[in-house]
Amino acid sequence: MSKLTDVPKRILIGRALRSDRLGETLLPKRIALPVFASDPLSSVAYAPGEVLLVLSIAGVSAYHFAPWIAVAVVILMFTVVASYRQNVHAYPSGGGDYEVANTNLGPKAGLTVASALLVDYVLTVAVSISSGVENLGSAIPFFVEHKVLCAVGIIVLLTLMNLRGVKESGKLFAIPTYVFVTSVFALIAWGAFRGLVLGDDMKAPTSDLHIESEHQGLAGFALVFLLLRSFSSGCAALTGVEAISNGVPAFRKPKSKNAATTLAMMGLFAVSMFCGIVGLALATDVHMAENPATDLLRDGVPVGGDYVQNPVISQVAAAVFGDGTFFFILLAAATALVLFLAANTAYNGFPLLGSILAQDRYLPRQLHTRGDRLAFSNGIVLLAGAATLLVIVYNADSTRLIQLYIVGVFVSFTLSQTGMVRHWNRHLANETDPAKRRRMIRSRAINTFGAFFTGLVLVVVLVTKFEHGAWVSLVGMVIFYAIMTAIRKHYDRVSEEIAAPEGPSDDSVRPSRVHSVVLVSKIHRPTLRALAYAKLMRSDTLEALSVNVDPAETKALREEWERRGIDVPLKVLDSPYREITRPIVEYVKGLRKESPRDAVSVIIPEYVVGHWYEQLLHNQSALRLKGRLLFTPGVMVTSVPYQLQSSEAAKIRERKRQEWNAPGAVRRGPAQERPKEASGKD
Amino acid sequence: MSKLTDVPKRILIGRALRSDRLGETLLPKRIALPVFASDPLSSVAYAPGEVLLVLSIAGVSAYHFAPWIAVAVVILMFTVVASYRQNVHAYPSGGGDYEVANTNLGPKAGLTVASALLVDYVLTVAVSISSGVENLGSAIPFFVEHKVLCAVGIIVLLTLMNLRGVKESGKLFAIPTYVFVTSVFALIAWGAFRGLVLGDDMKAPTSDLHIESEHQGLAGFALVFLLLRSFSSGCAALTGVEAISNGVPAFRKPKSKNAATTLAMMGLFAVSMFCGIVGLALATDVHMAENPATDLLRDGVPVGGDYVQNPVISQVAAAVFGDGTFFFILLAAATALVLFLAANTAYNGFPLLGSILAQDRYLPRQLHTRGDRLAFSNGIVLLAGAATLLVIVYNADSTRLIQLYIVGVFVSFTLSQTGMVRHWNRHLANETDPAKRRRMIRSRAINTFGAFFTGLVLVVVLVTKFEHGAWVSLVGMVIFYAIMTAIRKHYDRVSEEIAAPEGPSDDSVRPSRVHSVVLVSKIHRPTLRALAYAKLMRSDTLEALSVNVDPAETKALREEWERRGIDVPLKVLDSPYREITRPIVEYVKGLRKESPRDAVSVIIPEYVVGHWYEQLLHNQSALRLKGRLLFTPGVMVTSVPYQLQSSEAAKIRERKRQEWNAPGAVRRGPAQERPKEASGKD
Repeated sequence: MSKLTDVPKRILIGRALRSDRLGETLLPKRIALPVFASDPLSSVAYAPGEVLLVLSIAGVSAYHFAPWIAVAVVILMFTVVASYRQNVHAYPSGGGDYEVANTNLGPKAGLTVASALLVDYVLTVAVSISSGVENLGSAIPFFVEHKVLCAVGIIVLLTLMNLRGVKESGKLFAIPTYVFVTSVFALIAWGAFRGLVLGDDMKAPTSDLHIESEHQGLAGFALVFLLLRSFSSGCAALTGVEAISNGVPAFRKPKSKNAATTLAMMGLFAVSMFCGIVGLALATDVHMAENPATDLLRDGVPVGGDYVQNPVISQVAAAVFGDGTFFFILLAAATALVLFLAANTAYNGFPLLGSILAQDRYLPRQLHTRGDRLAFSNGIVLLAGAATLLVIVYNADSTRLIQLYIVGVFVSFTLSQTGMVRHWNRHLANETDPAKRRRMIRSRAINTFGAFFTGLVLVVVLVTKFEHGAWVSLVGMVIFYAIMTAIRKHYDRVSEEIAAPEGPSDDSVRPSRVHSVVLVSKIHRPTLRALAYAKLMRSDTLEALSVNVDPAETKALREEWERRGIDVPLKVLDSPYREITRPIVEYVKGLRKESPRDAVSVIIPEYVVGHWYEQLLHNQSALRLKGRLLFTPGVMVTSVPYQLQSSEAAKIRERKRQEWNAPGAVRRGPAQERPKEASGKD
Repeated sequence: MSKLTDVPKRILIGRALRSDRLGETLLPKRIALPVFASDPLSSVAYAPGEVLLVLSIAGVSAYHFAPWIAVAVVILMFTVVASYRQNVHAYPSGGGDYEVANTNLGPKAGLTVASALLVDYVLTVAVSISSGVENLGSAIPFFVEHKVLCAVGIIVLLTLMNLRGVKESGKLFAIPTYVFVTSVFALIAWGAFRGLVLGDDMKAPTSDLHIESEHQGLAGFALVFLLLRSFSSGCAALTGVEAISNGVPAFRKPKSKNAATTLAMMGLFAVSMFCGIVGLALATDVHMAENPATDLLRDGVPVGGDYVQNPVISQVAAAVFGDGTFFFILLAAATALVLFLAANTAYNGFPLLGSILAQDRYLPRQLHTRGDRLAFSNGIVLLAGAATLLVIVYNADSTRLIQLYIVGVFVSFTLSQTGMVRHWNRHLANETDPAKRRRMIRSRAINTFGAFFTGLVLVVVLVTKFEHGAWVSLVGMVIFYAIMTAIRKHYDRVSEEIAAPEGPSDDSVRPSRVHSVVLVSKIHRPTLRALAYAKLMRSDTLEALSVNVDPAETKALREEWERRGIDVPLKVLDSPYREITRPIVEYVKGLRKESPRDAVSVIIPEYVVGHWYEQLLHNQSALRLKGRLLFTPGVMVTSVPYQLQSSEAAKIRERKRQEWNAPGAVRRGPAQERPKEASGKD
């Protein structure tokens, strides 16, 4: 298995991990946190800015609502975290939202959640990468100047990395995530220290800009609507919170407990970072607008189309650390890196969800195979294509992309939490132990509140964001839903058609004799091997079959056949038009017509070569013939491969492919079967 | 075979011709002439113009050399026709230039001719269609204004027609060709009558233009070179003359005699049309220039880039019939149509030559099958792609494309005629009948002169046209030559590797026992059928094999297996990572390791569905498994297909495909085997 040329690779990325050894690598909490939380933690890079952006519509005076909106987001975050802690305990096998909804609310709810999640994965890539590029751009302007190009470039890079199967390691996530978290806390602490203790007057780069509000002095219903819209935008901080509940099997034991603790830690981190940044943004007079070109005025003049509105986190960092300082650049780089890691999690989640959906026959069955390279690649390419499309259409503008983002998240939150309520109801019906019942009732209460609150947010998001882009997500969900329903219907129809009849035997499928036919074009090793194998099979009759496309060759074949004394009768079919397939198919059909209860076994010698272009030069007639014979009932087709020397090259390639490990294996943990029904707390 | 929906098609294009009935449709001379001669006859539409174009470089005074050049072209034409009449007699089976060169001069000469012909087919399409568009444009300016677009459009149209397999009929060729020939003769006759009898002063539309020659008063070597270049251009009239020699089997008996007569008629027609048009062009003062925009002056001012230089045939028609008259438009339409038909002949010749080359293993073997739809389609698409590329690169300018054209033609002329000389030498060595010897000696003399003259022209063409574009053809030929040599080498290497050893038996390829394994995922009809078939085969041992990707499913499988009392032992392989391929391949390898002299037969139940998208949902694991098993020595892989209801759709499609007839079948005549060696005159 080892080759000299592999050594540099070994040194660089470590020995390829055989998947049977995956079980050895369970995650401790300190690694699990960065692995699962890069998505929710990184969203503090854009969520606070989105809150301010929307508020600015009512003028800078509306900024004083920002703390209240932050409080609402914090409450929501605690609710969601508390709810998912129940999921983690109830489904220690890593039942994601899809499974919870599917099991407790039925397949339609499950499929809705699945569609929402698939759309969400696409948006995670698009939003995180766009926001990452914007953050990088606050330090290195080149990135903002070529935003779409850079975003697409990073999508391509991530896609290639994932297609090649770069092994995911905990460290890869841990270092940038902890650098990011530490930097943000340092930012908040240093900002608080400078502001409160030193009494410095920190000013964001945009503090001198005036916001020309579109709706100055908004009041009543309009103001409430605006506040709700601003809250909806802030909810972007919630995306990815559910990731841990999918990854329970990857935790060290006690899995559920560790997962629940990690979830709580993540919630705490996210909430404090979110509030800290909102607070600093208000303290340093960050001014942002939805349409900065026209609504931001410098000395009474609109800043114009060339103006680049930097993300709130980098504006705050400029105010606290100073623009261009080491810490400023470190934070920008760490933010961008964490955002790209967040995008990368979607690259793993998408095929994983695909494999679960394939198990339930909503997607092609072969996707079910865990870590199957081909299935994985198809998923990756689909995801990357959709994300690229979004990035190009929305000009890599994270603000516009976020409008699409939050619908899917809250669809799955709501349905998952509703499912959990049903789950507890069902278990309460059979549980008599008062202590357990008490715990269950408490869990049910948490999930009920979670379902109610996330459902309310979903309605708010739908109402406030629909025309801003949420409808695009809904269309995407409907498309996924329709395709998956159609696939499931097809499988159901087929499985009904092929269901084995009860009773001892069904004569219609049991032939009584078998007539074997070996196809021969010339006498060479592959033919001799096929003949030898055919004889071993001891069918009722055996003959060799050749098609006469060239009388001279056929004559030579007959002569050699006799000379070698091959003890199988040679039958030659005439083919005045040099066809091969048709005479054979018609001959086989003729055999079947003569004795309809017999089966025909067609044995084809086949060459095995090592390169695709060699493949083009061989077996094409055999391939076509096989394709045609499949439609002839009562026929079986046997390939007897003959490995040519060049097939060694393909063998080596195959071996390399076997060593491939699907990225994301670490977060999935060792494979484990889904129980058909979850069994309460562990 | 008949369906109601087919009725309208039947009415439109006639009942599909089964290829076994092709033999009934042999061509009389009056139909054979247009079928085979559309290419050489249509070239009078551009060849005379090319002669004048080149002469104009030395100024309008050089036009007086035009008759002499016409005489040289006529002599060359007679030489080539006389030479090919010998080919037709010597190779009544339709030995084209490739076979003549291959048989008599060896494979390298043959391959050179083949490469030249392949390049020529591409150029026939590009030149004929470009010229056809120019002729159409002389009547309807739209076509010249969108020359490239129209040319590409017509290539696409011809390609689709040929891919769909529109049946070629003699009439399709006969009507436009005879209309064209009649119109041209009417043009010449009416022109002669008006000029000589009525004494009309006919003036071409360009007669009042002044040619600003680049090299006024050229003399000595430069003049000779120019005249030779002009002659080379005139040789474009010779393209396609060899077509009849490929098509002898399509003629009515006596085939060779009829073909020779048709060849002579074609030569006569071509020569008189060519001379007539040159004569009329001179009489009506047609003025053409290589670079009309700068070299043609109207009242002393260059005509400029917008000027469209109409083909000589349409200028003459404008002078004789009058611009825009009925006859003028009829001639333009007939010319364009004949040129498009000429392009269409390449669509048939290209795959036909491919099939001959495939027989000699220079191209993938499956192309050998006559009228094989897939092979045919690949050839068509390759041809169309290359022609489109040329048309776009050369801006659909027939004058520039013709520079590339003539090299290939004369490479094959020269090698073919040289081959014929060898042919007669060989036959003379064994022939004693003095009458036959006399005929052979005469034939040899004709072919010798042909070889010498065409060889001389080849040198002239190469020297005078090399830098004008002939090098492009040479590069194309080298590429074809290299690819075909590589393919042949691969086949030779493989055939050496698989050559059957002499002697009674070779133990290394003869296993002693066979162990059969039926792959089972669930118990359904396809599985039951596969099990029934496997039992029929009476291998030494038989077991069913399942991979445990889901313990619950596996348990259910085991239970049902027992309940049904299936008398085949069920073996379950564990697969903690839900892989299917690897456990099976490793199990099979293990079996082989245990008893290396045994063969393993892997039997896979397979679904047969009707649509490609259904195929995506089934058999993917089976396909991948098969691919992997092929590399495992000592294994045979059997598919037991189970036809689902939807497979009916595919069956109907297959049937339709079977009724398909390759276009160009008419000109090929009934299939006949090439004799390994031609046997003198028939």
